[in-house]
Amino acid sequence: MDGYAVKFEDTFGASDRSPKQLKVLEQTRPVNTGDPMPEGFNAVIMIEDVSIVSNESGVTSNIEDSNKPIVTSDKLKDKDSSLVTRPSSQEYIEIIEPATPWQHVRIIGEDIVATELILPENHKIRPMDIGAMLAGGLTDVKVRRKPRVAIIPTGSEIVEPGSDLKKGDIIEYNSRMLSGLVLEWGGEPIRFSPVADDTKQLKKAILEAVQVADLVIVNAGSSAGMRDFTPHVVKELGEVMLHGINIKPGKPLLAGLIKGKPVLGIPGYPVSAYITFELFASPIIHTWQGIEHKEKEKIRASLSRQVASSLGMEEFLRVKVGSIGDKTIASPVSRGAGILMSLVRADGFVRIPAMSEGIGAGTEIEVELIKHKDEIKNTIISIGSHDNALDILANFLKKRFAKYSLSSAHVGSMGGLIALKRKEAHIAGTHLLDEKTGEYNVPFIRQMLSGDEIILINLVYREQGLMVLKGNPKGINGFGDLVREDIIFINRQGGSGTRLLTDKHLKELHIDPKNIKGYDREEYTHMGVASAVLSGIADTGLGVLSAAMALGLDFIPVAKERYDLAIPKRFYSLEMTQCLLAIIREDKEFRDTVISLGGYDVSDMGRIVYDGSKA
Amino acid sequence: MDGYAVKFEDTFGASDRSPKQLKVLEQTRPVNTGDPMPEGFNAVIMIEDVSIVSNESGVTSNIEDSNKPIVTSDKLKDKDSSLVTRPSSQEYIEIIEPATPWQHVRIIGEDIVATELILPENHKIRPMDIGAMLAGGLTDVKVRRKPRVAIIPTGSEIVEPGSDLKKGDIIEYNSRMLSGLVLEWGGEPIRFSPVADDTKQLKKAILEAVQVADLVIVNAGSSAGMRDFTPHVVKELGEVMLHGINIKPGKPLLAGLIKGKPVLGIPGYPVSAYITFELFASPIIHTWQGIEHKEKEKIRASLSRQVASSLGMEEFLRVKVGSIGDKTIASPVSRGAGILMSLVRADGFVRIPAMSEGIGAGTEIEVELIKHKDEIKNTIISIGSHDNALDILANFLKKRFAKYSLSSAHVGSMGGLIALKRKEAHIAGTHLLDEKTGEYNVPFIRQMLSGDEIILINLVYREQGLMVLKGNPKGINGFGDLVREDIIFINRQGGSGTRLLTDKHLKELHIDPKNIKGYDREEYTHMGVASAVLSGIADTGLGVLSAAMALGLDFIPVAKERYDLAIPKRFYSLEMTQCLLAIIREDKEFRDTVISLGGYDVSDMGRIVYDGSKA
Repeated sequence: MDGYAVKFEDTFGASDRSPKQLKVLEQTRPVNTGDPMPEGFNAVIMIEDVSIVSNESGVTSNIEDSNKPIVTSDKLKDKDSSLVTRPSSQEYIEIIEPATPWQHVRIIGEDIVATELILPENHKIRPMDIGAMLAGGLTDVKVRRKPRVAIIPTGSEIVEPGSDLKKGDIIEYNSRMLSGLVLEWGGEPIRFSPVADDTKQLKKAILEAVQVADLVIVNAGSSAGMRDFTPHVVKELGEVMLHGINIKPGKPLLAGLIKGKPVLGIPGYPVSAYITFELFASPIIHTWQGIEHKEKEKIRASLSRQVASSLGMEEFLRVKVGSIGDKTIASPVSRGAGILMSLVRADGFVRIPAMSEGIGAGTEIEVELIKHKDEIKNTIISIGSHDNALDILANFLKKRFAKYSLSSAHVGSMGGLIALKRKEAHIAGTHLLDEKTGEYNVPFIRQMLSGDEIILINLVYREQGLMVLKGNPKGINGFGDLVREDIIFINRQGGSGTRLLTDKHLKELHIDPKNIKGYDREEYTHMGVASAVLSGIADTGLGVLSAAMALGLDFIPVAKERYDLAIPKRFYSLEMTQCLLAIIREDKEFRDTVISLGGYDVSDMGRIVYDGSKA
Repeated sequence: MDGYAVKFEDTFGASDRSPKQLKVLEQTRPVNTGDPMPEGFNAVIMIEDVSIVSNESGVTSNIEDSNKPIVTSDKLKDKDSSLVTRPSSQEYIEIIEPATPWQHVRIIGEDIVATELILPENHKIRPMDIGAMLAGGLTDVKVRRKPRVAIIPTGSEIVEPGSDLKKGDIIEYNSRMLSGLVLEWGGEPIRFSPVADDTKQLKKAILEAVQVADLVIVNAGSSAGMRDFTPHVVKELGEVMLHGINIKPGKPLLAGLIKGKPVLGIPGYPVSAYITFELFASPIIHTWQGIEHKEKEKIRASLSRQVASSLGMEEFLRVKVGSIGDKTIASPVSRGAGILMSLVRADGFVRIPAMSEGIGAGTEIEVELIKHKDEIKNTIISIGSHDNALDILANFLKKRFAKYSLSSAHVGSMGGLIALKRKEAHIAGTHLLDEKTGEYNVPFIRQMLSGDEIILINLVYREQGLMVLKGNPKGINGFGDLVREDIIFINRQGGSGTRLLTDKHLKELHIDPKNIKGYDREEYTHMGVASAVLSGIADTGLGVLSAAMALGLDFIPVAKERYDLAIPKRFYSLEMTQCLLAIIREDKEFRDTVISLGGYDVSDMGRIVYDGSKA
């Protein structure tokens, strides 16, 4: 405390009516916060509670200075403060209350005392712990060494990122993902250069790795394929302890021991790699650091649709989790072990037990979250038709309002309206053309969502057309060509607006779908159709111009259509929805970016084209 | 898939009864997982589903090799496998099922398609995101620069850690704590050397800081003391936007702007510094990174005792949180802004609103956690008498079982038994001597906890005595000296076993406590008493030998006493309790460490001295 050190015995009897005076430098000494107590004194009176009395003059003034030389500046004083008086032996302080022993005095060791346990072993040092250790006089502390994890990518077909890709090359990215996980867990990743499918080279790399690392990861080569050498090599160099586990994805995991070092054969598919690495490597790396491996945060949710699962395998189902009104909905995403984006887009995992054949729709399940609960709460769930402008919108929402995210699932326009009906989405993109009236979306909303108050916002008008390879090598001019013997078509899934558009045109031309090769093969997005055309799986498919432009395809225009966002009124007023609408309506950069994709008319962007609450 | 590429048209009609043969290298080509599809083929049949037929010999063999040259090794084959047959143009594969178009073929872009949004802006890159970006062909990504935060420690009395300390020196540790927080939040701390209480030097440092950093922290000098220059200097160099906030601790916070850079004057007391830095700097540093500032995890708990709070100030009350049976209890820890250990030991904060005068005992309150929920669940709450061996025990529990922690609050033996009664603790350390029977603890447990099934475990026997300065300068020989005019005593709090021991001895000697100076001043721990003696606040006090030894004090033995742990039966069988008991009973290193503290008899360590369930 800033104030005066006194002997409490000297202050007895001081009161309002009979103040007591103490001679400065004899009976009292000025002290500031942090000063040690002067020898012989045993209490401090706060500066606010004393007045200075000059014994000669009898003038009382405020105290504004200390007993130590300080640099003074006019700026340091309020202009109207009285003159600064440096206490001297000629002066006295006057008090009107007695002090209690050791008042306002901090005792040595009030905070930390010698021999006291500041932190136990196996404690992860936090910023306040650094403070406490330094305050306790410790400038050195023994910490555990970061566990070293060698990661050996294998495979003759894999190439380093940034290489010129030849057909059949696969970019090596797993090792970077695994390195990131090691860093996150407090370890030190040591990434090896890719090793070709060659027993000798693999042996050499593994032997080198067990020298430098505490844990060795071989990725991949542990499954039962022709070029999967890992089990044999581990067996030859040491001991295979475990090969194959009943989880999906992740079955081919291998665990072994070479020269006392644990070696994990992690599967090659990225999702399998992620899941098995987390299951098997994370506890090891944490334990070596003396850190208790924390369980993921969990949330209870209702499963949006039925999921069948293989008996005998525990499945790690990736799900997106949406907070829709008062419901929490978990929607399964792609289950392919090779689909890394399914992991990027997932919010968490649902574990389907090995002895279960699946989970019914609507079942309450537990989701292990890989995102923070707040992120899930602040995510707009969009289910419905796909449009590339939605990706742009998702980016702008996060760019302008970091708090909010837009998550889109592409199930077609019909699927989107069904999701709204089942209260599984906040918004749905839709471009459903009513054959009878020629009107977009409204007739379907009225029919499918009667009673619901839907507000329909136009996002874009866009051009649909047949996508073909650059130069149109097969000379396709329109839907009429689809029946040609040499043409393979790629379709969109039933319930999508684009499928409806296809069927409308075929009907008008009296073409029987049976006569179209590939009519039964369905893709779920415009980009999926464009990819199928680009890779030669099909010769043509219907999609938006922006998708064709994105992959450098030629485009035969078929129709201009209206693409709207359907929003139930009760979600319309949410802050996150209003942020989204603000971007759609007012963000010039967003609008320009959409236009730059090609084929978009944004003249009605953001306009309410239908308001169900007024209808 | 490892298998054979085929044209699906060629497979029509294959069945069990009429297998179809396809000529290798003409009608079919062997492929491995990851291979590109050979030109002209459009489906893959899995290796498991084909047999090789040598047309000349008619012999069918298993497939074990691929079309590519590979290094073979005997180790790679099962010993009993048939001879390896390399498919050649003389050979055929036989299939018994037709293939569907594009079966087992992954389409380009199944995972990521050009122009697809992999990650939005303002997204914090996770390990799987690195994988997805590389898989998408991106080797460069623009990221936000880490915000630079200059931290300027000020004060003429502060010295760098590791310096030789002179009286009045204060070790500078706040800046290291704040630097740790900046790192945790993703920023880059720039720590300045301490600046003396000198306007010119402070100005110079701040001007330098606004050049190199995005945010400038001045610690401290923002309160109203005589040497608190920060407000004046900020005002002179720029603009003071805010000075003083109604939170406790943390009132003197200052926020200003100098040359367009935000400047925060953070209070000097470490707890105030931590709280205000987190409240004011964290949102800025997160926002600059495009990261939504996450709220702390919260837990509902019952407040263990009444807490009064100043009206008009929002108080950040530090609490320990215990999970006791099915109750969650929050117990306030020291409220001093200077007590950094209170922050180290705290599990979270309770915010007492400015308009509240306090919170009643038993009120359900919300705790903002600074530890993980799991850590709280896995912590043994010990409330009761203090003994240095408990610190050793806490360290060994964490050392041997990283999952578990022991948290001790020191309220004296009586307080411990009351805590057990109120179900606020798992265990209680106690050394209560019954004057009548001369028995330790059991009579008190029977009286206070009737009906509760308590198991009493001996931890140690220990020596209590009067602690005096080295050399015993005042020649104290026993309790009889406490009435001397020149002796100041320091007492332990009522309800502590040591206080009971004191009072028993005074009674035996017919000494009236009124005649003992300092009898009314109470400390809560043995180390607190030892510190008071060491710092000259008192001449002597009663405590255990280990405390005297820790601070180099002399010791006049008074009694040997039994120190037990009382454990309710329902907590006795908990895994964490069993781990604790395993250390007490079986851990030689623990036992030796306790012995090395001095004054301990461990001959009964871990023995059940009373079992209430059998009594």
